[in-house]
Amino acid sequence: MQLVTIDDIRAAADRIRPVAVRTPLLQAPWADPERPLWIKPENLQPIGAFKIRGAFNALAKLDEPVRARGVVAYSSGNHAQAVAYAARAYGIPAHIVMPEDTPAVKIEATRAYGAEVVLCEVGKREVVADELVEKTGGVLVPPFDHPDVIAGQGTAGLEISHDLPEVEIVVMPVSGGGLASGIGTAIKALCPNARVYGVEPELAADAQESLQAGHRVSWSVEDRNRTIADGLRSQPSELTFAHLQHVLDGLVTVTEDEIREAVRVLAHKSHLVVEPSGAVSVAAYLKGAIPAGTTVAVVSGGNINPEMFQEILSAGAPA
Amino acid sequence: MQLVTIDDIRAAADRIRPVAVRTPLLQAPWADPERPLWIKPENLQPIGAFKIRGAFNALAKLDEPVRARGVVAYSSGNHAQAVAYAARAYGIPAHIVMPEDTPAVKIEATRAYGAEVVLCEVGKREVVADELVEKTGGVLVPPFDHPDVIAGQGTAGLEISHDLPEVEIVVMPVSGGGLASGIGTAIKALCPNARVYGVEPELAADAQESLQAGHRVSWSVEDRNRTIADGLRSQPSELTFAHLQHVLDGLVTVTEDEIREAVRVLAHKSHLVVEPSGAVSVAAYLKGAIPAGTTVAVVSGGNINPEMFQEILSAGAPA
Repeated sequence: MQLVTIDDIRAAADRIRPVAVRTPLLQAPWADPERPLWIKPENLQPIGAFKIRGAFNALAKLDEPVRARGVVAYSSGNHAQAVAYAARAYGIPAHIVMPEDTPAVKIEATRAYGAEVVLCEVGKREVVADELVEKTGGVLVPPFDHPDVIAGQGTAGLEISHDLPEVEIVVMPVSGGGLASGIGTAIKALCPNARVYGVEPELAADAQESLQAGHRVSWSVEDRNRTIADGLRSQPSELTFAHLQHVLDGLVTVTEDEIREAVRVLAHKSHLVVEPSGAVSVAAYLKGAIPAGTTVAVVSGGNINPEMFQEILSAGAPA
Repeated sequence: MQLVTIDDIRAAADRIRPVAVRTPLLQAPWADPERPLWIKPENLQPIGAFKIRGAFNALAKLDEPVRARGVVAYSSGNHAQAVAYAARAYGIPAHIVMPEDTPAVKIEATRAYGAEVVLCEVGKREVVADELVEKTGGVLVPPFDHPDVIAGQGTAGLEISHDLPEVEIVVMPVSGGGLASGIGTAIKALCPNARVYGVEPELAADAQESLQAGHRVSWSVEDRNRTIADGLRSQPSELTFAHLQHVLDGLVTVTEDEIREAVRVLAHKSHLVVEPSGAVSVAAYLKGAIPAGTTVAVVSGGNINPEMFQEILSAGAPA
């Protein structure tokens, strides 16, 4: 299988420069000095998540006449906003299929970017998206199962390697695996001594089980939907799984309580509003699940419903 | 009177590079398209506020034998943390005088950076700081009344002019006036067509009254302490007032409710935890108090007590 290369990622970085924020690394003053921690705050991207990198790269690579027919995507949230935002930047139509249980804040944001949102039953979104491609003639932009999307997400890793070449540990969430595939590829190419760790919720740890088994193991939608980390309920594809096997040094899990605590720490100590899915890398750091060393934790997104944010904060300030 | 120059600010930028974050401009997708808004998120600095720029520049400019005797500062909060952080970076002692009513989160953070905190009665901090200078032989680093501090704060303006040369409006909080003096100087030098606006709470609007009167007008400590924006309770010095007269195109005020709403908007729509003092520039934008145009709002800090943050969010999500 053809894996994404560092050259693909470099080319993606040139394409996304006009729309993606070049996020800084933020040193966490509250971290253990023996394990210095830097945060890569992808919640500061225009759509509130790293997904703009992959979506914009995928659209930018399309031939203009093809792109003009519009795009279709299915997503529980952040990829939807990313495709909507990128489509608006190109002035082309976007149809986005979202499951009915998607947080309202993500549905509204997607509509606000001018996309047509098509709600569907949980678990049916890929079928509905295929029907829309048939009907509209648009191009399907998958949330992670595409080399151009993976290369786009990898640009975050390129930036990490540039800003902190001495990094020893890079840690990020794993859901469909696009982010980890891309960043892992960049880090292994440019910081070959650094180790790369993925993080999943315990309640959606299909990728961990798959890596241990050496082949993809599927968890039911019902099981994966138990976690509050609504952005981490997907499973790797054949393509991303091949990348994960190649670039990950380990995959650890965090509990729901550990995720909530990480959201509180990021709010009160790093001044960032982060969604549960975006906080799992910091949760893994806080629980000591990853080895000691100069660490970068990718904080992948900030699109949390106001009610859930308040509910999580109401447990009180972290120690 | 000798005002700070763009060359002073350029030199400061070289000095602070190792410690200050090069904060990106974040376009606010929720802004009125007729008045595009970019946020300069200084709450992401290591100490959670822009103050690290001025404090570090002031320490960096001291001769080594002088600096080795240590530093003294008085501050209601963010300058305290900034001096403590900068002193630790140089491995020198820091004594910080803070009024007794300083938010606990700021006192704790200052101690965490290794500084000795000396609590004093409200209104007595300058006297107590002078005594400490006498006793320790350390150098006083004032929160705003010093050219090196002003030049350091101005580096944020240098970055704005580089990242968005077409900026038409730059808006930022005014308290002692160091930030506005520095940024205003940079913007007027590098983006001469841009207009520069300061913002104060209505309850601490001494600088607005002073600019209208053409000379400094003092408000009582009791009056200024009414605002929840605890970082905006100082008054300009002769030096900063001269800068403000030179660089500001206007000074507008915001109410306490408008400040609270801006904190909510920044949390829920821009994924940033911002203290009331840091949110006044966005409050002024939201109320339409500044002219239309491509706008940069400097969000100056994020050190808010967890209890106050929750209390402000409890009013519900912004429209």
